[in-house]
Amino acid sequence: MIYADYNGSAPLSQDVREYLVKRFEKGPFANPNAIHYLGTKTLMGMENARAVCAKVLGADFDQVIFNSGATEGISTIFHTILSNEKNKKIIIISGIEHSAIINTADYYATRGFTVKCLPVNSNGIVDVDTLTKWLKEDSANIAMVAVMAANNETGVIQPYFEINSLCLKNNIPYLCDTTQFIGKTPFNFKESNMHYAVCSGHKLGALTGTGILLVKNPEKLLPLIIGGGQEKGHRGGTQNYLGNETLAVALTTLEKNFVNINTLTEKRVEFEKKIKSAFPEVVIIGENSPRLATTTYISYPGIHGQAVQIELESQDIFVTTSSACSDNSPVTSKVLKAMGTRDDIGRGVVRISLCLNSPLAYYDKIADALTKAYTKLAKVKSY
Amino acid sequence: MIYADYNGSAPLSQDVREYLVKRFEKGPFANPNAIHYLGTKTLMGMENARAVCAKVLGADFDQVIFNSGATEGISTIFHTILSNEKNKKIIIISGIEHSAIINTADYYATRGFTVKCLPVNSNGIVDVDTLTKWLKEDSANIAMVAVMAANNETGVIQPYFEINSLCLKNNIPYLCDTTQFIGKTPFNFKESNMHYAVCSGHKLGALTGTGILLVKNPEKLLPLIIGGGQEKGHRGGTQNYLGNETLAVALTTLEKNFVNINTLTEKRVEFEKKIKSAFPEVVIIGENSPRLATTTYISYPGIHGQAVQIELESQDIFVTTSSACSDNSPVTSKVLKAMGTRDDIGRGVVRISLCLNSPLAYYDKIADALTKAYTKLAKVKSY
Repeated sequence: MIYADYNGSAPLSQDVREYLVKRFEKGPFANPNAIHYLGTKTLMGMENARAVCAKVLGADFDQVIFNSGATEGISTIFHTILSNEKNKKIIIISGIEHSAIINTADYYATRGFTVKCLPVNSNGIVDVDTLTKWLKEDSANIAMVAVMAANNETGVIQPYFEINSLCLKNNIPYLCDTTQFIGKTPFNFKESNMHYAVCSGHKLGALTGTGILLVKNPEKLLPLIIGGGQEKGHRGGTQNYLGNETLAVALTTLEKNFVNINTLTEKRVEFEKKIKSAFPEVVIIGENSPRLATTTYISYPGIHGQAVQIELESQDIFVTTSSACSDNSPVTSKVLKAMGTRDDIGRGVVRISLCLNSPLAYYDKIADALTKAYTKLAKVKSY
Repeated sequence: MIYADYNGSAPLSQDVREYLVKRFEKGPFANPNAIHYLGTKTLMGMENARAVCAKVLGADFDQVIFNSGATEGISTIFHTILSNEKNKKIIIISGIEHSAIINTADYYATRGFTVKCLPVNSNGIVDVDTLTKWLKEDSANIAMVAVMAANNETGVIQPYFEINSLCLKNNIPYLCDTTQFIGKTPFNFKESNMHYAVCSGHKLGALTGTGILLVKNPEKLLPLIIGGGQEKGHRGGTQNYLGNETLAVALTTLEKNFVNINTLTEKRVEFEKKIKSAFPEVVIIGENSPRLATTTYISYPGIHGQAVQIELESQDIFVTTSSACSDNSPVTSKVLKAMGTRDDIGRGVVRISLCLNSPLAYYDKIADALTKAYTKLAKVKSY
């Protein structure tokens, strides 16, 4: 079996599985806020995990806030920035944001805010010139900017560094959705100089339902989940100590795999070229943009993406057509629409997303399977 | 070792550990919203878990919303009821609520609401007569009522059924904090006729960072964590499928243990009597109130609770002085203050909380250890 849906969710990593099996035998299990020895030992384990996560992510210890995932992180940051904002009424997002950003912005649109959406070019890159223009025109009215670091469908890396600089210069809070970026490429929170970044454990091989919110100035956070003062008052609820420990294990593993980025990228490019030379109609979305090493978003115009996905699945290769959240609608995804992608291309895409320690040979196997699928399906082109 | 801090947090149950170890070997691991086979299989497993939880909790399938725990559930319900409330400005809570309720109510007090706190009698029971009076006087201005089902420190069971009836009659939403109730005593959501109930997986032996929000009319929920439409739009973020599965395993185990309630209660009463007859000064908090089978909140006035806790710990018995959230302050807890408990009693308490399948012999061992501790510490009474 080849699992090629890491951008959707990563399987629990082997290191995490082994860690947990031992952890279940040894304990401790206790409320990390309890005064007895089991409580303080549990707390120490969790705080060690925080230190490891902070180191891998290039953040200060206190800048790491454990939560249930990137979506909670995003809702928390919108809440922090907007709940007490009386004057600035514009939220800037981009046309390729994840629905967690779009839907949260839309919620605040029902509460007096205006959402402005940055255009994206055909290569899948958010237009910084427009942002510069909007900031010049109306920076006093802009409450926040939310633009992702890397897109979940295309894998295209965004000019988040420039966007951050522009926001800093204009004193506007910037939420960078780093969900697909962290773990797939080196990231240093302090060097990025961002206000906020988010990640989800289930994208990293940690336990599902875990996550980290990175905050430059945590003292300014307004908790979304209030509770009893846990996480220094930033996030209530008895801490998910088991889950948080697995974040440290998973991030440590991922960091080791960064050494594979170049070889994997070369192999991915070779794979893409092979398919394109066999099928000249094929389009690689964002082909010439900087992309995550492990993502290929590929379309054979006229062949439904879902048909390709099913053919690959019959050969034990698991891919998706777009993101899990929009998978169920067989139309061009919002991301591709924002890029101005033609509908015949948009309906044909499948997303192949591996991880940094996937064997290189997977690309050969996927190439064979995809060749078979395209050859078969091209004969019965459906649109 | 005797772990006697189940009200603080339950260790991962043996059934859950065994389940997970097998689960890690077999898979599947995937985004439950993905269209491929691994995704749909993951989704099916999670929805089966929802059906099991619904059955054990006496709720409809759609009334079970998975989240990260009771604190998130509480914040979600306050948000649902209050965020769009323009006219009704009173929140009623009680003096013995968990800090998750108190702090959330206090947050809304900064946003134009008034918090009224119901008195509690010396037996630890919330005063329903006062609630009746307040409802008569001003029901048109009451936005919501939040009173717990069982107290986390004392174990005293509250008149939630009467409170719910009063709220229903006055058309006021009632949030019942059932965090300590569910799993420790039979509970049927539909029979309770409540609007909302909450629970935390870590109190039940499930994975930490899991929980269930029970909602009579889920279509009225306003999501706190917005995200990409998961949980039918009620709670965003890729679902914690592994955690949610463990909720089904843990609740199934707990349901089987309800058969032990009577024998455990008898044994607990025998234990309390034994200690009281050896040390007539000893006070059992809420002694004559209906209490959870497994909770004893006990004080020897003049002997610091923390000294007792340390003595018991030296005999490998783990208890706390009050709730984990307020453990660190060596003063009479808010709950005991609300009950009007004398300070010399309040400073002396330790909470002994077992689970429904704890061996009966634990109470004999705890009695011996407590006898030793009290005998030793009474000689050097500290206040």
